[in-house]
Amino acid sequence: MADDGGSTGRLRDELGVLPPGDVRQCLVALSKQTKALRDLFNYRFESGQLKGHSMGNIFLSAAEKMEGDFSEGLKTVGKILNIKGLVLPVTEDDVNLIMKLKNGEVLKGQNEINHNFEIQKTGIEKIYLEPKASPNQEAIAKIKEADIIIIGPGNHYCSVIPNLIVEGIPEAISKSKAQVIYISNLVNKNGHTDDFSLSDYVESINSFFLKPRVDKVLFNTTEPSEKLKEKYKSQGENLIKFGEVDCEVIKADILSRIEPKYSKSDSISEMRSFIRHDSDKLAKEILKII
Amino acid sequence: MADDGGSTGRLRDELGVLPPGDVRQCLVALSKQTKALRDLFNYRFESGQLKGHSMGNIFLSAAEKMEGDFSEGLKTVGKILNIKGLVLPVTEDDVNLIMKLKNGEVLKGQNEINHNFEIQKTGIEKIYLEPKASPNQEAIAKIKEADIIIIGPGNHYCSVIPNLIVEGIPEAISKSKAQVIYISNLVNKNGHTDDFSLSDYVESINSFFLKPRVDKVLFNTTEPSEKLKEKYKSQGENLIKFGEVDCEVIKADILSRIEPKYSKSDSISEMRSFIRHDSDKLAKEILKII
Repeated sequence: MADDGGSTGRLRDELGVLPPGDVRQCLVALSKQTKALRDLFNYRFESGQLKGHSMGNIFLSAAEKMEGDFSEGLKTVGKILNIKGLVLPVTEDDVNLIMKLKNGEVLKGQNEINHNFEIQKTGIEKIYLEPKASPNQEAIAKIKEADIIIIGPGNHYCSVIPNLIVEGIPEAISKSKAQVIYISNLVNKNGHTDDFSLSDYVESINSFFLKPRVDKVLFNTTEPSEKLKEKYKSQGENLIKFGEVDCEVIKADILSRIEPKYSKSDSISEMRSFIRHDSDKLAKEILKII
Repeated sequence: MADDGGSTGRLRDELGVLPPGDVRQCLVALSKQTKALRDLFNYRFESGQLKGHSMGNIFLSAAEKMEGDFSEGLKTVGKILNIKGLVLPVTEDDVNLIMKLKNGEVLKGQNEINHNFEIQKTGIEKIYLEPKASPNQEAIAKIKEADIIIIGPGNHYCSVIPNLIVEGIPEAISKSKAQVIYISNLVNKNGHTDDFSLSDYVESINSFFLKPRVDKVLFNTTEPSEKLKEKYKSQGENLIKFGEVDCEVIKADILSRIEPKYSKSDSISEMRSFIRHDSDKLAKEILKII
Protein backbone atom coordinates (compact mmCIF):
# COMPACT_ATOMS: atom_id res chain seq x y z
CA MET A 1 0.00 0.00 0.00
CA ALA A 2 3.03 2.30 -0.29
CA ASP A 3 3.93 1.48 -3.89
CA ASP A 4 4.63 4.59 -5.96
CA GLY A 5 6.38 3.16 -9.02
CA GLY A 6 5.30 2.54 -12.61
CA SER A 7 1.63 2.32 -13.55
CA THR A 8 0.61 2.35 -9.90
CA GLY A 9 2.58 5.53 -9.16
CA ARG A 10 1.05 7.35 -12.12
CA LEU A 11 -2.48 6.39 -11.12
CA ARG A 12 -1.79 7.55 -7.55
CA ASP A 13 -0.46 10.87 -8.82
CA GLU A 14 -3.09 11.62 -11.39
CA LEU A 15 -6.24 10.18 -9.88
CA GLY A 16 -5.43 10.36 -6.19
CA VAL A 17 -6.23 6.67 -5.79
CA LEU A 18 -4.50 4.18 -3.51
CA PRO A 19 -1.89 1.88 -5.10
CA PRO A 20 -3.66 -0.89 -7.04
CA GLY A 21 -0.63 -2.89 -8.23
CA ASP A 22 -0.02 -5.47 -5.50
CA VAL A 23 -3.71 -5.83 -4.75
CA ARG A 24 -4.31 -6.57 -8.44
CA GLN A 25 -1.88 -9.47 -8.31
CA CYS A 26 -3.55 -10.89 -5.19
CA LEU A 27 -6.97 -10.64 -6.83
CA VAL A 28 -5.85 -12.34 -10.02
CA ALA A 29 -4.18 -15.11 -8.02
CA LEU A 30 -7.42 -15.80 -6.12
CA SER A 31 -9.74 -15.38 -9.10
CA LYS A 32 -11.89 -18.24 -10.33
CA GLN A 33 -12.86 -16.25 -13.42
CA THR A 34 -12.05 -17.37 -16.94
CA LYS A 35 -8.42 -17.21 -18.00
CA ALA A 36 -9.42 -14.51 -20.51
CA LEU A 37 -10.47 -12.09 -17.77
CA ARG A 38 -7.40 -12.87 -15.67
CA ASP A 39 -5.15 -12.32 -18.67
CA LEU A 40 -6.90 -9.05 -19.46
CA PHE A 41 -6.31 -7.90 -15.89
CA ASN A 42 -2.59 -8.42 -16.29
CA TYR A 43 -2.46 -6.96 -19.81
CA ARG A 44 -0.11 -3.99 -20.06
CA PHE A 45 -0.58 -1.31 -22.74
CA GLU A 46 2.42 -0.79 -24.97
CA SER A 47 1.83 2.61 -26.56
CA GLY A 48 0.15 5.99 -26.19
CA GLN A 49 -0.79 7.63 -22.94
CA LEU A 50 -1.81 4.27 -21.51
CA LYS A 51 1.68 2.84 -22.11
CA GLY A 52 2.85 0.82 -19.12
CA HIS A 53 -0.53 0.77 -17.41
CA SER A 54 -1.93 -2.61 -16.61
CA MET A 55 -5.60 -3.09 -17.40
CA GLY A 56 -6.26 -4.34 -13.85
CA ASN A 57 -4.71 -1.25 -12.26
CA ILE A 58 -6.97 0.99 -14.33
CA PHE A 59 -9.96 -1.20 -13.47
CA LEU A 60 -9.24 -1.06 -9.73
CA SER A 61 -8.76 2.70 -9.86
CA ALA A 62 -12.08 3.13 -11.67
CA ALA A 63 -13.76 0.95 -9.03
CA GLU A 64 -12.26 3.01 -6.20
CA LYS A 65 -13.39 6.22 -7.87
CA MET A 66 -16.86 4.85 -8.51
CA GLU A 67 -17.35 3.49 -5.00
CA GLY A 68 -15.58 6.47 -3.44
CA ASP A 69 -13.47 4.15 -1.27
CA PHE A 70 -10.56 1.80 -1.96
CA SER A 71 -11.79 -1.13 0.12
CA GLU A 72 -15.29 -0.92 -1.35
CA GLY A 73 -13.83 -0.77 -4.85
CA LEU A 74 -11.70 -3.77 -4.05
CA LYS A 75 -14.74 -5.74 -2.89
CA THR A 76 -16.62 -4.86 -6.08
CA VAL A 77 -13.71 -6.02 -8.23
CA GLY A 78 -13.33 -9.12 -6.05
CA LYS A 79 -16.94 -10.03 -6.85
CA ILE A 80 -16.46 -9.43 -10.57
CA LEU A 81 -13.29 -11.56 -10.53
CA ASN A 82 -15.14 -14.17 -8.46
CA ILE A 83 -12.28 -14.52 -6.01
CA LYS A 84 -11.98 -17.29 -3.48
CA GLY A 85 -10.93 -15.61 -0.27
CA LEU A 86 -10.56 -12.00 0.69
CA VAL A 87 -7.98 -9.35 -0.16
CA LEU A 88 -7.63 -6.68 2.53
CA PRO A 89 -5.18 -3.79 2.35
CA VAL A 90 -3.11 -3.42 5.50
CA THR A 91 -4.02 0.27 5.58
CA GLU A 92 -6.35 2.52 3.63
CA ASP A 93 -4.21 5.60 4.21
CA ASP A 94 -2.36 7.34 1.42
CA VAL A 95 1.21 6.82 2.59
CA ASN A 96 4.79 6.80 1.33
CA LEU A 97 7.58 4.47 2.33
CA ILE A 98 10.56 6.36 3.77
CA MET A 99 14.02 4.95 4.47
CA LYS A 100 16.56 6.88 6.48
CA LEU A 101 20.12 5.69 5.93
CA LYS A 102 22.95 5.81 8.44
CA ASN A 103 24.68 8.59 6.52
CA GLY A 104 21.63 10.81 7.04
CA GLU A 105 20.31 10.37 3.51
CA VAL A 106 16.52 10.00 3.30
CA LEU A 107 15.01 7.91 0.50
CA LYS A 108 11.42 8.88 -0.26
CA GLY A 109 9.00 6.43 -1.78
CA GLN A 110 9.16 2.75 -2.61
CA ASN A 111 10.33 3.47 -6.13
CA GLU A 112 13.35 5.52 -4.99
CA ILE A 113 14.23 2.91 -2.37
CA ASN A 114 13.90 0.11 -4.90
CA HIS A 115 16.36 1.77 -7.26
CA ASN A 116 18.99 2.68 -4.66
CA PHE A 117 21.85 0.19 -4.65
CA GLU A 118 23.85 1.52 -1.68
CA ILE A 119 21.39 0.58 1.05
CA GLN A 120 23.17 -2.36 2.63
CA LYS A 121 26.57 -0.69 2.28
CA THR A 122 25.39 2.52 3.94
CA GLY A 123 23.17 0.82 6.48
CA ILE A 124 19.57 1.52 7.45
CA GLU A 125 18.79 3.85 10.34
CA LYS A 126 15.01 3.57 10.12
CA ILE A 127 12.23 2.51 7.76
CA TYR A 128 8.79 4.06 8.24
CA LEU A 129 5.66 5.38 6.57
CA GLU A 130 4.79 9.03 6.07
CA PRO A 131 2.31 10.11 7.21
CA LYS A 132 1.92 7.49 9.93
CA ALA A 133 -0.56 4.88 8.73
CA SER A 134 -3.48 3.64 10.75
CA PRO A 135 -4.23 -0.03 10.25
CA ASN A 136 -7.26 -1.39 8.43
CA GLN A 137 -9.40 -2.69 11.30
CA GLU A 138 -10.81 -5.46 9.11
CA ALA A 139 -7.25 -6.69 8.50
CA ILE A 140 -6.53 -6.57 12.26
CA ALA A 141 -9.66 -8.64 12.95
CA LYS A 142 -8.67 -11.25 10.37
CA ILE A 143 -5.12 -11.47 11.76
CA LYS A 144 -6.58 -12.07 15.23
CA GLU A 145 -8.72 -15.00 14.07
CA ALA A 146 -6.14 -16.46 11.66
CA ASP A 147 -4.84 -20.04 12.02
CA ILE A 148 -1.84 -19.40 9.84
CA ILE A 149 -0.05 -16.23 8.76
CA ILE A 150 2.27 -16.44 5.77
CA ILE A 151 4.91 -13.77 5.26
CA GLY A 152 6.79 -13.44 1.98
CA PRO A 153 8.30 -14.11 -0.44
CA GLY A 154 8.86 -10.67 -2.00
CA ASN A 155 11.10 -7.64 -2.24
CA HIS A 156 12.28 -7.45 1.37
CA TYR A 157 12.28 -3.70 2.08
CA CYS A 158 9.73 -2.67 -0.55
CA SER A 159 7.04 -5.35 -0.26
CA VAL A 160 7.46 -7.51 2.86
CA ILE A 161 8.61 -5.05 5.55
CA PRO A 162 6.12 -2.26 4.66
CA ASN A 163 3.33 -4.49 5.99
CA LEU A 164 5.10 -4.67 9.33
CA ILE A 165 5.53 -0.92 9.87
CA VAL A 166 1.83 -0.07 9.88
CA GLU A 167 1.19 0.57 13.56
CA GLY A 168 -1.05 -2.15 14.98
CA ILE A 169 -0.21 -4.82 12.40
CA PRO A 170 2.97 -6.30 13.97
CA GLU A 171 1.27 -6.00 17.38
CA ALA A 172 -1.74 -7.96 16.10
CA ILE A 173 0.54 -10.62 14.59
CA SER A 174 2.55 -10.76 17.83
CA LYS A 175 -0.58 -11.44 19.87
CA SER A 176 -2.29 -13.75 17.38
CA LYS A 177 -2.37 -17.49 18.12
CA ALA A 178 -1.67 -18.27 14.44
CA GLN A 179 1.37 -20.18 13.22
CA VAL A 180 3.60 -17.69 11.45
CA ILE A 181 5.37 -19.07 8.40
CA TYR A 182 8.03 -17.15 6.54
CA ILE A 183 8.69 -18.17 2.96
CA SER A 184 12.25 -17.30 2.17
CA ASN A 185 13.17 -15.49 -1.02
CA LEU A 186 15.46 -17.30 -3.46
CA VAL A 187 17.99 -14.60 -4.30
CA ASN A 188 19.43 -11.59 -2.52
CA LYS A 189 18.62 -8.18 -3.94
CA ASN A 190 21.55 -6.19 -5.30
CA GLY A 191 22.34 -3.22 -3.05
CA HIS A 192 19.63 -4.08 -0.55
CA THR A 193 20.39 -7.48 0.96
CA ASP A 194 23.58 -8.49 -0.93
CA ASP A 195 25.05 -10.91 1.56
CA PHE A 196 22.01 -11.70 3.69
CA SER A 197 21.71 -15.33 4.71
CA LEU A 198 18.41 -16.91 5.72
CA SER A 199 19.02 -15.95 9.37
CA ASP A 200 19.46 -12.27 8.45
CA TYR A 201 16.06 -12.22 6.77
CA VAL A 202 14.36 -13.95 9.68
CA GLU A 203 16.03 -11.65 12.21
CA SER A 204 15.06 -8.60 10.18
CA ILE A 205 11.41 -9.69 10.13
CA ASN A 206 11.36 -10.71 13.79
CA SER A 207 12.75 -7.31 14.79
CA PHE A 208 9.39 -5.69 13.98
CA PHE A 209 7.47 -7.89 16.44
CA LEU A 210 7.28 -7.53 20.21
CA LYS A 211 9.38 -10.72 20.38
CA PRO A 212 10.54 -13.19 17.69
CA ARG A 213 7.35 -14.41 16.07
CA VAL A 214 8.31 -16.52 13.03
CA ASP A 215 7.47 -20.17 13.86
CA LYS A 216 8.51 -21.90 10.68
CA VAL A 217 10.60 -21.10 7.65
CA LEU A 218 10.20 -22.60 4.20
CA PHE A 219 13.57 -22.67 2.45
CA ASN A 220 14.35 -23.86 -1.06
CA THR A 221 17.14 -26.39 -1.42
CA THR A 222 17.16 -26.99 -5.16
CA GLU A 223 19.83 -25.33 -7.23
CA PRO A 224 18.82 -23.54 -10.41
CA SER A 225 20.86 -24.17 -13.56
CA GLU A 226 24.41 -22.83 -13.73
CA LYS A 227 23.31 -20.60 -16.62
CA LEU A 228 20.62 -18.94 -14.54
CA LYS A 229 22.91 -18.55 -11.56
CA GLU A 230 25.51 -16.89 -13.78
CA LYS A 231 22.89 -14.54 -15.23
CA TYR A 232 21.90 -13.42 -11.74
CA LYS A 233 25.48 -13.19 -10.52
CA SER A 234 26.27 -10.83 -13.38
CA GLN A 235 23.52 -8.55 -12.02
CA GLY A 236 24.98 -8.74 -8.53
CA GLU A 237 22.34 -11.16 -7.27
CA ASN A 238 23.25 -14.43 -5.57
CA LEU A 239 21.27 -17.31 -4.15
CA ILE A 240 20.36 -16.89 -0.50
CA LYS A 241 22.58 -19.08 1.66
CA PHE A 242 21.22 -21.06 4.55
CA GLY A 243 21.96 -19.67 7.99
CA GLU A 244 20.92 -21.22 11.31
CA VAL A 245 17.73 -19.76 12.71
CA ASP A 246 16.02 -20.17 16.04
CA CYS A 247 12.89 -21.86 14.67
CA GLU A 248 11.88 -24.84 12.58
CA VAL A 249 13.17 -24.77 8.99
CA ILE A 250 11.45 -26.82 6.32
CA LYS A 251 13.90 -27.45 3.53
CA ALA A 252 12.17 -28.41 0.31
CA ASP A 253 12.30 -28.32 -3.45
CA ILE A 254 10.06 -25.34 -4.17
CA LEU A 255 11.91 -24.07 -7.22
CA SER A 256 10.20 -23.60 -10.55
CA ARG A 257 11.80 -25.60 -13.34
CA ILE A 258 9.92 -23.82 -16.06
CA GLU A 259 11.46 -20.71 -17.46
CA PRO A 260 8.44 -18.46 -17.89
CA LYS A 261 7.59 -17.65 -21.46
CA TYR A 262 7.02 -14.08 -22.43
CA SER A 263 3.57 -13.36 -23.77
CA LYS A 264 1.84 -10.09 -24.60
CA SER A 265 -0.75 -10.68 -21.95
CA ASP A 266 1.78 -11.18 -19.20
CA SER A 267 4.57 -8.68 -19.47
CA ILE A 268 5.21 -9.28 -15.77
CA SER A 269 7.03 -12.51 -16.45
CA GLU A 270 9.43 -10.68 -18.72
CA MET A 271 10.44 -8.26 -16.00
CA ARG A 272 10.43 -10.67 -13.12
CA SER A 273 13.33 -12.85 -12.17
CA PHE A 274 13.55 -16.19 -13.84
CA ILE A 275 14.64 -17.86 -10.62
CA ARG A 276 11.26 -18.16 -8.99
CA HIS A 277 9.11 -20.33 -6.80
CA ASP A 278 6.87 -23.02 -8.20
CA SER A 279 3.45 -22.07 -6.84
CA ASP A 280 2.16 -25.65 -6.88
CA LYS A 281 5.17 -27.04 -5.00
CA LEU A 282 4.92 -24.16 -2.54
CA ALA A 283 1.21 -24.78 -1.96
CA LYS A 284 1.90 -28.48 -1.33
CA GLU A 285 4.53 -27.70 1.33
CA ILE A 286 2.24 -25.19 3.04
CA LEU A 287 -0.61 -27.71 3.07
CA LYS A 288 1.69 -30.24 4.74
CA ILE A 289 2.25 -27.78 7.59
CA ILE A 290 -1.47 -27.05 7.98
CA MET B 1 -17.13 1.74 -36.61
CA ALA B 2 -16.08 5.15 -37.97
CA ASP B 3 -16.23 7.03 -34.66
CA ASP B 4 -13.18 9.23 -34.10
CA GLY B 5 -14.31 11.52 -31.28
CA GLY B 6 -13.56 11.68 -27.57
CA SER B 7 -12.19 8.68 -25.71
CA THR B 8 -12.72 6.45 -28.75
CA GLY B 9 -10.77 8.78 -31.04
CA ARG B 10 -7.82 8.95 -28.64
CA LEU B 11 -7.67 5.17 -28.28
CA ARG B 12 -7.78 4.81 -32.09
CA ASP B 13 -4.98 7.34 -32.47
CA GLU B 14 -2.70 6.09 -29.76
CA LEU B 15 -3.23 2.35 -29.78
CA GLY B 16 -4.31 1.81 -33.38
CA VAL B 17 -7.43 -0.02 -32.21
CA LEU B 18 -10.85 0.05 -33.82
CA PRO B 19 -13.45 2.36 -32.24
CA PRO B 20 -14.81 0.75 -29.06
CA GLY B 21 -17.40 3.38 -28.05
CA ASP B 22 -20.63 2.27 -29.74
CA VAL B 23 -19.81 -1.39 -29.33
CA ARG B 24 -19.34 -0.81 -25.59
CA GLN B 25 -22.85 0.57 -25.29
CA CYS B 26 -24.31 -2.42 -27.17
CA LEU B 27 -22.43 -4.84 -24.91
CA VAL B 28 -23.55 -3.12 -21.70
CA ALA B 29 -27.16 -3.06 -22.95
CA LEU B 30 -27.07 -6.82 -23.59
CA SER B 31 -25.09 -7.74 -20.47
CA LYS B 32 -26.57 -9.94 -17.79
CA GLN B 33 -23.64 -9.20 -15.47
CA THR B 34 -24.04 -7.49 -12.11
CA LYS B 35 -24.94 -3.83 -12.13
CA ALA B 36 -21.50 -3.12 -10.60
CA LEU B 37 -19.67 -4.40 -13.67
CA ARG B 38 -22.00 -2.62 -16.05
CA ASP B 39 -21.57 0.62 -14.12
CA LEU B 40 -17.79 0.19 -14.13
CA PHE B 41 -17.90 -0.27 -17.89
CA ASN B 42 -19.60 3.08 -18.31
CA TYR B 43 -17.44 4.84 -15.71
CA ARG B 44 -15.56 7.81 -17.14
CA PHE B 45 -12.31 9.05 -15.60
CA GLU B 46 -12.38 12.68 -14.54
CA SER B 47 -8.70 13.60 -14.17
CA GLY B 48 -5.15 12.84 -15.27
CA GLN B 49 -4.17 11.28 -18.56
CA LEU B 50 -7.17 8.97 -18.37
CA LYS B 51 -9.58 11.92 -18.22
CA GLY B 52 -12.57 11.39 -20.48
CA HIS B 53 -11.80 7.73 -21.13
CA SER B 54 -14.55 5.30 -20.28
CA MET B 55 -13.45 2.18 -18.48
CA GLY B 56 -15.23 -0.03 -21.02
CA ASN B 57 -13.44 1.61 -23.96
CA ILE B 58 -10.08 0.90 -22.33
CA PHE B 59 -11.18 -2.65 -21.55
CA LEU B 60 -12.27 -3.31 -25.14
CA SER B 61 -9.03 -1.85 -26.50
CA ALA B 62 -6.98 -4.07 -24.18
CA ALA B 63 -9.00 -7.09 -25.32
CA GLU B 64 -8.41 -6.21 -28.99
CA LYS B 65 -4.69 -5.79 -28.36
CA MET B 66 -4.50 -9.02 -26.39
CA GLU B 67 -6.45 -11.06 -28.93
CA GLY B 68 -4.82 -9.28 -31.87
CA ASP B 69 -8.20 -8.79 -33.51
CA PHE B 70 -11.20 -6.54 -32.80
CA SER B 71 -13.90 -9.17 -33.32
CA GLU B 72 -12.07 -11.71 -31.17
CA GLY B 73 -11.59 -9.10 -28.45
CA LEU B 74 -15.26 -8.27 -28.66
CA LYS B 75 -16.20 -11.93 -28.21
CA THR B 76 -13.93 -12.22 -25.17
CA VAL B 77 -15.49 -9.15 -23.57
CA GLY B 78 -18.95 -10.40 -24.52
CA LYS B 79 -18.26 -13.58 -22.55
CA ILE B 80 -16.95 -11.65 -19.55
CA LEU B 81 -20.02 -9.41 -19.64
CA ASN B 82 -22.21 -12.49 -20.09
CA ILE B 83 -24.18 -10.89 -22.90
CA LYS B 84 -27.42 -12.24 -24.27
CA GLY B 85 -27.10 -12.02 -28.02
CA LEU B 86 -24.25 -11.09 -30.27
CA VAL B 87 -22.59 -7.78 -31.11
CA LEU B 88 -21.01 -7.73 -34.57
CA PRO B 89 -19.25 -4.73 -36.07
CA VAL B 90 -20.45 -3.91 -39.57
CA THR B 91 -16.84 -3.81 -40.72
CA GLU B 92 -13.48 -4.60 -39.17
CA ASP B 93 -11.63 -2.10 -41.32
CA ASP B 94 -10.02 1.02 -39.90
CA VAL B 95 -12.09 3.67 -41.69
CA ASN B 96 -13.07 7.31 -41.46
CA LEU B 97 -16.42 8.84 -42.24
CA ILE B 98 -16.17 11.49 -44.98
CA MET B 99 -18.86 13.96 -45.99
CA LYS B 100 -18.54 16.04 -49.14
CA LEU B 101 -20.76 19.11 -49.12
CA LYS B 102 -22.30 20.79 -52.16
CA ASN B 103 -19.95 23.76 -51.87
CA GLY B 104 -16.97 21.42 -52.32
CA GLU B 105 -16.01 21.36 -48.63
CA VAL B 106 -14.92 17.95 -47.36
CA LEU B 107 -15.55 17.05 -43.71
CA LYS B 108 -13.19 14.35 -42.47
CA GLY B 109 -14.14 12.11 -39.60
CA GLN B 110 -17.30 11.59 -37.62
CA ASN B 111 -16.20 14.09 -34.99
CA GLU B 112 -15.74 16.92 -37.52
CA ILE B 113 -19.06 16.08 -39.18
CA ASN B 114 -20.82 15.96 -35.81
CA HIS B 115 -19.62 19.44 -34.91
CA ASN B 116 -20.41 21.11 -38.23
CA PHE B 117 -23.67 23.03 -38.10
CA GLU B 118 -23.95 24.09 -41.74
CA ILE B 119 -24.57 20.68 -43.24
CA GLN B 120 -28.26 20.95 -44.08
CA LYS B 121 -27.91 24.56 -45.24
CA THR B 122 -25.00 23.72 -47.56
CA GLY B 123 -26.37 20.38 -48.67
CA ILE B 124 -24.68 16.98 -48.88
CA GLU B 125 -23.05 15.87 -52.09
CA LYS B 126 -21.87 12.48 -50.84
CA ILE B 127 -21.23 10.56 -47.63
CA TYR B 128 -18.71 7.71 -47.72
CA LEU B 129 -15.98 5.83 -45.89
CA GLU B 130 -12.26 6.20 -46.51
CA PRO B 131 -10.68 3.84 -47.28
CA LYS B 132 -13.57 1.83 -48.70
CA ALA B 133 -14.74 -0.64 -46.06
CA SER B 134 -15.29 -4.31 -46.69
CA PRO B 135 -18.21 -5.75 -44.75
CA ASN B 136 -17.86 -8.16 -41.86
CA GLN B 137 -18.99 -11.44 -43.42
CA GLU B 138 -20.42 -12.63 -40.11
CA ALA B 139 -22.65 -9.55 -40.03
CA ILE B 140 -23.74 -10.22 -43.63
CA ALA B 141 -24.64 -13.80 -42.71
CA LYS B 142 -26.71 -12.67 -39.71
CA ILE B 143 -28.53 -10.07 -41.81
CA LYS B 144 -29.41 -12.76 -44.34
CA GLU B 145 -30.97 -15.02 -41.71
CA ALA B 146 -32.62 -12.22 -39.70
CA ASP B 147 -36.37 -12.12 -39.08
CA ILE B 148 -36.34 -8.50 -38.13
CA ILE B 149 -33.87 -5.67 -38.73
CA ILE B 150 -34.16 -2.58 -36.56
CA ILE B 151 -32.59 0.65 -37.73
CA GLY B 152 -32.16 3.61 -35.38
CA PRO B 153 -32.68 5.62 -33.34
CA GLY B 154 -29.41 7.59 -33.30
CA ASN B 155 -27.42 10.47 -34.72
CA HIS B 156 -28.59 10.30 -38.35
CA TYR B 157 -25.41 11.02 -40.31
CA CYS B 158 -22.91 9.93 -37.66
CA SER B 159 -24.41 6.71 -36.29
CA VAL B 160 -27.29 5.43 -38.43
CA ILE B 161 -26.18 6.14 -42.01
CA PRO B 162 -22.54 4.95 -41.56
CA ASN B 163 -23.86 1.37 -41.26
CA LEU B 164 -25.51 1.74 -44.66
CA ILE B 165 -22.43 2.90 -46.58
CA VAL B 166 -20.34 -0.20 -45.95
CA GLU B 167 -20.45 -1.91 -49.32
CA GLY B 168 -22.44 -5.13 -49.04
CA ILE B 169 -24.49 -4.16 -46.00
CA PRO B 170 -27.36 -2.25 -47.70
CA GLU B 171 -27.33 -4.91 -50.46
CA ALA B 172 -27.69 -7.65 -47.83
CA ILE B 173 -30.53 -5.79 -46.10
CA SER B 174 -32.18 -5.18 -49.47
CA LYS B 175 -32.16 -8.88 -50.29
CA SER B 176 -32.99 -10.13 -46.79
CA LYS B 177 -36.51 -11.43 -46.10
CA ALA B 178 -36.56 -9.70 -42.70
CA GLN B 179 -39.05 -7.05 -41.70
CA VAL B 180 -37.18 -3.76 -41.57
CA ILE B 181 -38.30 -1.43 -38.79
CA TYR B 182 -37.08 2.12 -38.49
CA ILE B 183 -37.32 3.70 -35.07
CA SER B 184 -37.61 7.42 -35.58
CA ASN B 185 -35.54 9.84 -33.58
CA LEU B 186 -37.37 12.29 -31.33
CA VAL B 187 -35.64 15.57 -32.16
CA ASN B 188 -33.90 17.00 -35.20
CA LYS B 189 -30.19 17.69 -34.93
CA ASN B 190 -29.12 21.32 -35.17
CA GLY B 191 -27.31 21.99 -38.44
CA HIS B 192 -27.73 18.43 -39.69
CA THR B 193 -31.44 17.71 -40.03
CA ASP B 194 -33.03 20.97 -38.79
CA ASP B 195 -36.36 20.78 -40.56
CA PHE B 196 -36.51 17.08 -41.41
CA SER B 197 -39.91 15.50 -40.98
CA LEU B 198 -40.39 11.77 -40.48
CA SER B 199 -40.66 11.26 -44.25
CA ASP B 200 -37.29 12.96 -44.84
CA TYR B 201 -35.58 10.51 -42.48
CA VAL B 202 -37.25 7.49 -44.03
CA GLU B 203 -36.43 8.70 -47.56
CA SER B 204 -32.83 9.33 -46.56
CA ILE B 205 -32.48 5.79 -45.20
CA ASN B 206 -34.32 4.18 -48.11
CA SER B 207 -32.01 5.95 -50.57
CA PHE B 208 -29.15 3.66 -49.57
CA PHE B 209 -31.02 0.48 -50.51
CA LEU B 210 -31.58 -0.93 -53.97
CA LYS B 211 -35.24 0.08 -53.54
CA PRO B 212 -37.22 1.42 -50.55
CA ARG B 213 -36.77 -1.20 -47.84
CA VAL B 214 -38.23 0.22 -44.59
CA ASP B 215 -41.40 -1.78 -43.86
CA LYS B 216 -42.53 -0.17 -40.64
CA VAL B 217 -41.81 2.99 -38.72
CA LEU B 218 -42.16 3.47 -34.99
CA PHE B 219 -43.00 7.09 -34.25
CA ASN B 220 -43.46 8.72 -30.85
CA THR B 221 -46.63 10.71 -30.36
CA THR B 222 -46.26 11.89 -26.78
CA GLU B 223 -45.21 15.46 -26.19
CA PRO B 224 -42.43 16.15 -23.70
CA SER B 225 -42.94 18.93 -21.15
CA GLU B 226 -42.98 22.53 -22.39
CA LYS B 227 -39.85 23.15 -20.31
CA LEU B 228 -37.90 20.43 -22.08
CA LYS B 229 -39.14 21.52 -25.49
CA GLU B 230 -38.03 25.08 -24.73
CA LYS B 231 -34.61 23.87 -23.59
CA TYR B 232 -34.14 22.03 -26.88
CA LYS B 233 -35.53 24.86 -28.96
CA SER B 234 -32.95 27.21 -27.43
CA GLN B 235 -30.27 24.83 -28.77
CA GLY B 236 -31.85 24.86 -32.22
CA GLU B 237 -33.40 21.43 -31.85
CA ASN B 238 -37.07 20.78 -32.45
CA LEU B 239 -39.29 17.73 -32.20
CA ILE B 240 -39.51 15.73 -35.38
CA LYS B 241 -42.83 16.39 -37.13
CA PHE B 242 -44.84 13.63 -38.66
CA GLY B 243 -44.74 13.44 -42.46
CA GLU B 244 -46.59 10.91 -44.62
CA VAL B 245 -44.46 7.93 -45.59
CA ASP B 246 -45.04 5.10 -47.99
CA CYS B 247 -45.09 2.35 -45.36
CA GLU B 248 -46.86 1.41 -42.16
CA VAL B 249 -46.37 3.86 -39.28
CA ILE B 250 -46.94 2.73 -35.72
CA LYS B 251 -47.68 5.76 -33.61
CA ALA B 252 -47.11 5.10 -29.95
CA ASP B 253 -46.12 6.58 -26.62
CA ILE B 254 -42.45 5.58 -26.46
CA LEU B 255 -41.21 8.68 -24.63
CA SER B 256 -39.32 8.46 -21.37
CA ARG B 257 -40.96 10.37 -18.55
CA ILE B 258 -38.00 10.11 -16.26
CA GLU B 259 -35.40 12.81 -16.46
CA PRO B 260 -32.18 10.81 -16.14
CA LYS B 261 -30.26 11.53 -12.99
CA TYR B 262 -26.60 12.29 -13.24
CA SER B 263 -24.36 9.87 -11.41
CA LYS B 264 -20.59 9.50 -11.38
CA SER B 265 -20.85 6.07 -12.89
CA ASP B 266 -22.92 7.19 -15.82
CA SER B 267 -21.67 10.47 -17.15
CA ILE B 268 -23.35 9.54 -20.43
CA SER B 269 -26.74 10.57 -19.11
CA GLU B 270 -25.38 14.02 -18.35
CA MET B 271 -24.28 14.57 -21.91
CA ARG B 272 -27.16 12.91 -23.66
CA SER B 273 -30.43 14.59 -24.57
CA PHE B 274 -33.07 14.58 -21.93
CA ILE B 275 -35.77 13.98 -24.49
CA ARG B 276 -35.25 10.29 -24.99
CA HIS B 277 -36.95 7.01 -25.63
CA ASP B 278 -38.19 4.78 -22.85
CA SER B 279 -36.46 1.48 -23.54
CA ASP B 280 -39.21 -0.60 -21.91
CA LYS B 281 -42.00 1.07 -23.86
CA LEU B 282 -39.94 0.72 -27.03
CA ALA B 283 -39.31 -2.97 -26.39
CA LYS B 284 -43.04 -3.54 -25.81
CA GLU B 285 -43.95 -1.92 -29.14
CA ILE B 286 -41.33 -3.93 -31.01
CA LEU B 287 -42.55 -7.16 -29.41
CA LYS B 288 -46.09 -6.34 -30.60
CA ILE B 289 -44.80 -6.22 -34.18
CA ILE B 290 -42.92 -9.50 -33.84
